Amino acid sequence: MLERAIDHARVHGERYVRELAELLRIPSISTLPAHTPDMRRAAEWLAAHLTRLGIRNARAMPTQGHPVVYGEWLDAGPNAPTLLIYGHYDVQPVDPVSLWRTPPFEPTIREGRIYARGATDDKGLVFALICAVESMLAAGPLPVNIKWMIEGEEESSSTSLEAFVLANKDLLAANSVLISDTPFLAPGQPQIPYSLRGIAAAEVRVRGPKTDLHSGAFGGTVRNPAAALAALIAALHDETGHVRIPGFYDNVRPLPEEERAALQKLPYTLEDWQRETGLQTPWGEPDFTIKERIGARPTCEVNGMWGGFQGEGTKTIIPAEAGAKFTMRLVADQDPAMITRLFTEYIQSLAPKDLRVEVIPHEGSWPAITPIDTREIKAAAKALETVWGAPPVFARGGGSLPIVATLQSELKTPVVMLGFGLPDCGAHAPNEWMDLGQFHKGIECAIHYFHLLRSS
Amino acid sequence: MLERAIDHARVHGERYVRELAELLRIPSISTLPAHTPDMRRAAEWLAAHLTRLGIRNARAMPTQGHPVVYGEWLDAGPNAPTLLIYGHYDVQPVDPVSLWRTPPFEPTIREGRIYARGATDDKGLVFALICAVESMLAAGPLPVNIKWMIEGEEESSSTSLEAFVLANKDLLAANSVLISDTPFLAPGQPQIPYSLRGIAAAEVRVRGPKTDLHSGAFGGTVRNPAAALAALIAALHDETGHVRIPGFYDNVRPLPEEERAALQKLPYTLEDWQRETGLQTPWGEPDFTIKERIGARPTCEVNGMWGGFQGEGTKTIIPAEAGAKFTMRLVADQDPAMITRLFTEYIQSLAPKDLRVEVIPHEGSWPAITPIDTREIKAAAKALETVWGAPPVFARGGGSLPIVATLQSELKTPVVMLGFGLPDCGAHAPNEWMDLGQFHKGIECAIHYFHLLRSS
Repeated sequence: MLERAIDHARVHGERYVRELAELLRIPSISTLPAHTPDMRRAAEWLAAHLTRLGIRNARAMPTQGHPVVYGEWLDAGPNAPTLLIYGHYDVQPVDPVSLWRTPPFEPTIREGRIYARGATDDKGLVFALICAVESMLAAGPLPVNIKWMIEGEEESSSTSLEAFVLANKDLLAANSVLISDTPFLAPGQPQIPYSLRGIAAAEVRVRGPKTDLHSGAFGGTVRNPAAALAALIAALHDETGHVRIPGFYDNVRPLPEEERAALQKLPYTLEDWQRETGLQTPWGEPDFTIKERIGARPTCEVNGMWGGFQGEGTKTIIPAEAGAKFTMRLVADQDPAMITRLFTEYIQSLAPKDLRVEVIPHEGSWPAITPIDTREIKAAAKALETVWGAPPVFARGGGSLPIVATLQSELKTPVVMLGFGLPDCGAHAPNEWMDLGQFHKGIECAIHYFHLLRSS
Repeated sequence: MLERAIDHARVHGERYVRELAELLRIPSISTLPAHTPDMRRAAEWLAAHLTRLGIRNARAMPTQGHPVVYGEWLDAGPNAPTLLIYGHYDVQPVDPVSLWRTPPFEPTIREGRIYARGATDDKGLVFALICAVESMLAAGPLPVNIKWMIEGEEESSSTSLEAFVLANKDLLAANSVLISDTPFLAPGQPQIPYSLRGIAAAEVRVRGPKTDLHSGAFGGTVRNPAAALAALIAALHDETGHVRIPGFYDNVRPLPEEERAALQKLPYTLEDWQRETGLQTPWGEPDFTIKERIGARPTCEVNGMWGGFQGEGTKTIIPAEAGAKFTMRLVADQDPAMITRLFTEYIQSLAPKDLRVEVIPHEGSWPAITPIDTREIKAAAKALETVWGAPPVFARGGGSLPIVATLQSELKTPVVMLGFGLPDCGAHAPNEWMDLGQFHKGIECAIHYFHLLRSS
């Protein structure tokens, strides 16, 4: 059965890539209201595709926001384990679009990679799991029961998913959760993240004069909102990269010495970091290594800022207003609501009284940390080693999957993160790509995992 | 003759406004290369219009950049004074265009004002001088010889005009220069600026990672270029509004006590400032009054900044780069090239070594200060008082007319600034307007001035 499924995956690999490209063509950017119809199209495309494969009750279920694609195959019976497979069909925005070599929603294959927004994050990875299930169904009954929950708001903090999970606990009940939305540590080196960072997010708007002012007629008498915002941004870190928001680090769970030692052994080098970033010198808290800063320390980043004249040439104005967007990555046991409040209080404490400074909180998510001694994690490790020939390392991931904390706390199931993106794949950046070798091996890895779950 | 000219101006006033609207319809934004054809259209429109009025040799003369409109009427003969009239037909950019109540290049009359980009600065003002000459020519020969020099690069630091003046000294030779490009101090209160600020300008680009990075995968290890730029912007001023660039104030000519006393008497109040800015509390160097800060002190402003994600929603990235544009207003005797160098050195001294920080200098201009005891200034004062019933105050202007310093030094003539915009007319901002009463009175004032120049 296992071999026949893998044979099927190999024979049909090219078609799988073509089908993935179809999904990648749908510009399902969840954060941009203009793309709401595309969100529905992507959800319905997935539901129809799952139905074609033999998944039952596949449908786009409504939420407060974008739909969740649900589907199930439960014929393995009550004695077999039930697996809830989570993924997301929404993608990040694409600007600056001018930096894309080929258009973000016209998937293009170059040198063994497929380039498109969502190629890895997460359409490519979740679709590999779908292809694994198709291959297994073609070979016979599945070894386990499965349920799908593919959401459309992962890139906007999974705003509606918590309510969806709470409202559908019985429908979603499972013995474990499988998520494929994380990268390898390096090519050939799989990893299983056991910790993910949470997010706190906010936007700051600084408003000054009633309109842009002529800098000749008023310059020297008006506090410049862009300069005032710049001072607020500059006040967020000290010179060592430490976040200066009072109380920011209060709830950070200390990193045990044995875990520091384990992280130290992760095969991720300064050279890896340099290659991936294009930079020479890492920045950040001097008391922590690169790996610790990414996996075990919280951050505060300005994701974008704007104000005044941005066109060609010069325009001699004092801008009427300026703005910036911030996200903070959180680690256990930081509370996103509390961090957002501390951020707001700090900004307001520094805000010049002669300007109007508004802090707009955005949706946040909790950090998550999971035990690594479960049978599911062991099966995942074995599946990865079988396909790639290298045992995975257990790592603290720097990214965030908002739903992990919710699934852990609400469904009381272990969450397994079995991802096979590559580290510099351009997730959230221009020219995102998916290595097709990783895609095909990922399908095989998932087939192994399903079988190991039953037999282990 | 004078009365007949004024009668003619009154009878033809509505047509003058319609003709001004024609000129305002041409989107002659000099800083945007896409508008180069519009620059030529505006210049040719003006040359054709001057020709129709009886101005000789009216033509758009080529420069390194946008053309200069020249024209002359010299029949008053060698014993009459010759007046060089300067103006500019280029306008500021219009963004944010969404804040305009009516489109910037569709002139609209509401409540006695004409709204359009350039309505005051400077098409409306220079066109009033043209209408004055038309009215006088309709009444008989002009009392003085006149030459026109209407440039197309005032809003981009008059880049080509200095070379044009140097190459055409004989053509432009005159006994005095007339410029109408400055505002009243308040409605009903004319002013004659005797000092103008210069400009130094530069753009700063900060480049970090090779691409936007996922803030989950890299956050905490990469210096954020937008945050680094914010720190550079924040370092430009101390808490009192004093510019922190070393040497910035070295060449500033001290303000004599008698001039401080005269400035103190200018009828410009805190309430005026509050009404014009929409703010409550002035900002800036505590040792100087509002009027001194605008007229006698140099400034450093960020005119615009940008970096990373500016769209709706959130995007969890570390931006690959960020940028900002700066202009500094200079006072006598600051050298724009030296100030730009000091700015560059200061920014580079603070620039983090792990990022690439580039400072791109832009064209600057010298400050200017002129004697106020000439017969031309006295004639201008009398013309203003005749029409508005109030004597002008002599003020230090905060704005910049780059060419004033050049004309003073190269043509060795006094420069008279006879402007009649109103202070909150939205020059450089959305919804720029010109009061039609000021426009018509401005025409009459110019007619008086021309006659007074001959008789005084």
